[in-house]
Amino acid sequence: MGKVLIIGAGGVANVVAHKCYQNSEVFDEICIASRSIEKCNEIRNKLTGGNANVLTDQLDANNSDLVIGLIKRFKPDVVINVALPYQNLSIMDACVETGVHYIDTANYEPPEVPKFEYKWQWEYRDRFAKKGIMALLGCGFDPGVTGIFCAYAQKHYFDEIHSIDIVDANAGDHGYPFATNFNPEINIREVTANGRYFENGQWIETEPLSIKSVYNFPLVGPKNIYLLYHEELESLAINIKGLKRIRFWMTFSDNYLNYLNVLKNVGMTSIEAIEYEGNKIIPLKFLKAILPDPAALGQRTKGKTNIGCIIQGVKNGEPKSYYIYNVCIHEECYKEVGSQAISYTTGVPAMIGAMLILKGIWKKSGVFNVEEFDPDPFMEALNKFGLEWNEDFSPDLLD
Amino acid sequence: MGKVLIIGAGGVANVVAHKCYQNSEVFDEICIASRSIEKCNEIRNKLTGGNANVLTDQLDANNSDLVIGLIKRFKPDVVINVALPYQNLSIMDACVETGVHYIDTANYEPPEVPKFEYKWQWEYRDRFAKKGIMALLGCGFDPGVTGIFCAYAQKHYFDEIHSIDIVDANAGDHGYPFATNFNPEINIREVTANGRYFENGQWIETEPLSIKSVYNFPLVGPKNIYLLYHEELESLAINIKGLKRIRFWMTFSDNYLNYLNVLKNVGMTSIEAIEYEGNKIIPLKFLKAILPDPAALGQRTKGKTNIGCIIQGVKNGEPKSYYIYNVCIHEECYKEVGSQAISYTTGVPAMIGAMLILKGIWKKSGVFNVEEFDPDPFMEALNKFGLEWNEDFSPDLLD
Repeated sequence: MGKVLIIGAGGVANVVAHKCYQNSEVFDEICIASRSIEKCNEIRNKLTGGNANVLTDQLDANNSDLVIGLIKRFKPDVVINVALPYQNLSIMDACVETGVHYIDTANYEPPEVPKFEYKWQWEYRDRFAKKGIMALLGCGFDPGVTGIFCAYAQKHYFDEIHSIDIVDANAGDHGYPFATNFNPEINIREVTANGRYFENGQWIETEPLSIKSVYNFPLVGPKNIYLLYHEELESLAINIKGLKRIRFWMTFSDNYLNYLNVLKNVGMTSIEAIEYEGNKIIPLKFLKAILPDPAALGQRTKGKTNIGCIIQGVKNGEPKSYYIYNVCIHEECYKEVGSQAISYTTGVPAMIGAMLILKGIWKKSGVFNVEEFDPDPFMEALNKFGLEWNEDFSPDLLD
Repeated sequence: MGKVLIIGAGGVANVVAHKCYQNSEVFDEICIASRSIEKCNEIRNKLTGGNANVLTDQLDANNSDLVIGLIKRFKPDVVINVALPYQNLSIMDACVETGVHYIDTANYEPPEVPKFEYKWQWEYRDRFAKKGIMALLGCGFDPGVTGIFCAYAQKHYFDEIHSIDIVDANAGDHGYPFATNFNPEINIREVTANGRYFENGQWIETEPLSIKSVYNFPLVGPKNIYLLYHEELESLAINIKGLKRIRFWMTFSDNYLNYLNVLKNVGMTSIEAIEYEGNKIIPLKFLKAILPDPAALGQRTKGKTNIGCIIQGVKNGEPKSYYIYNVCIHEECYKEVGSQAISYTTGVPAMIGAMLILKGIWKKSGVFNVEEFDPDPFMEALNKFGLEWNEDFSPDLLD
């Protein structure tokens, strides 16, 4: 039916490639391109359960001209960008130039400092619209499925949504005393950043990890959760009309936070170089060197993730609450595609988004977030492709 | 009256020099010698409250011939060794050669691995005896005053001592989230070593920090204490006749142990070099470089130390218990001599030992531990020179 270009060769790209290949009646040609063609080939060599034609290519996605060149050679119908968020704009430029649909799973970041803002990408609206093509932003799990859950709730269960709490639990255990699920440098900078949430038309900033609660996650159990800022809050605060409050919460174990706190207090998370035996050494980079490699965690990780939305509002004049969530099991994901649940829950939705575009089911010209489309075909595909969802019509609520 | 050679220029040497100088009617000439003559001069320049003649000299105490040379030039009556424990034997050799009394505050350590054993120094017995001079080993606080407390209890209060618990509390606060009171490399290696205690004629080895209790220290309050090995256990197990059990306990805060545990678990206390940006870096040495300099803690440290002995035995056929302890205040020590209580409690007894030798009050030929002498004049001097002691005849006991 169509051709997909996957840019990136990390854990999420691995999941996207597996899921596209399993769905070969939709994706009959797949190209995997990244800076390291060896990693692309490694992914290709493990694909099973399909019959699509799979190519690989070496690509520096920072260079828009190189992306244009590859698109012109391979002629994809859609590009799935699961490379680094620094590269979103160079890839979008190439899509506009060549007239190809675009999907990503995380907002563009200026390399210097993480901002978690859509503004740079929303500025491409006219260019995509004029070309008659679509950019689908943030089509992973969170952002991604969390927005689709909200759109689904809005469509089927509410006249007006007043409050959304996105709750993200990773109850996986990798067996190390301390490790980060992705690049420790970026992980630690994110967790130590200020929190932010939307209430009554205003954004409220909070000290890092200063707002804490406990939530009893189905199939996972009670966990401490901490209020963080997360990028889907920005688009949902605009796209869910009548919304009074939206917050994002993530679980961190006491152990994880204790390690982080100790390492921060002794100075090991500092990004200021110190003199050591005649060399300049940045403590955080040295720490990264002694911590376990995140890529090695996949096959060790056991346990579940549970990510969902607790939604409150009114239906037929009555107050109503609704909780919709997905539970994913690390070791089953690893068994199926060779990546754990964090990558799995991000990669599957990206494939589904591409499928809906290729099939013409999601069809608009311009730049969009996922909650701006009919959620029903996406929700159906989640159940089919490994991310079954569950509903609870009398959930526990957060204060 | 006499001449003292102080070898070393660290925190303890600073205290010894101040205390000898305050006691100029006993010590009318003082020489301070260490590898760095600048540090010796710094100490000299701060001395007040006396009128002794004070010299300084540059000395590499690893080299016995250089120590002999200095002794021959300065002609001291006694040498107080408060340099590194690696240098005890070279200094003892020089004292034997020149016929000068010797005092130290910590047992000799082979440089490769800490052993905490007296055997190397006890082997000098005949050589010191033949020369008609005395070596007084471990004349700081612990070892040192703890042994004198036991001898005092034996002399005045017990027919037989059955059990001794030495309890050492440092309730000082330096205001840093984590720092070590001396070289972090050595400190961390010690704390993570196996524990050991003596019971019914046998030495029993324990996992590091595996035996924990709580003791309510007078003027300090209840603190967690952990069983460690400490060198005075070796000599007291021999010198206190009839002893059935002796143990040593030290306080560590939950915070200190938590930091230590996290740093150990992430690999920051490892002494195995790792490759980092083309250099070999030992994590523990890098950690030392980012932690506060122990020398900078003195003027920041507030709070008290409480070190003493809880002693059980029989008197006139009746069971009896007795607790004797000293409480020292960090900021008062710093105010008096420019060092905090850890250095103060070690340096004052070294001066007292030298005084008793110079005055001929403690007079034997050979190598001795402090509990082998009449404790009364030492106990009197402790009260006079800043280390007042307190007695409790119905103390809390440890199981």
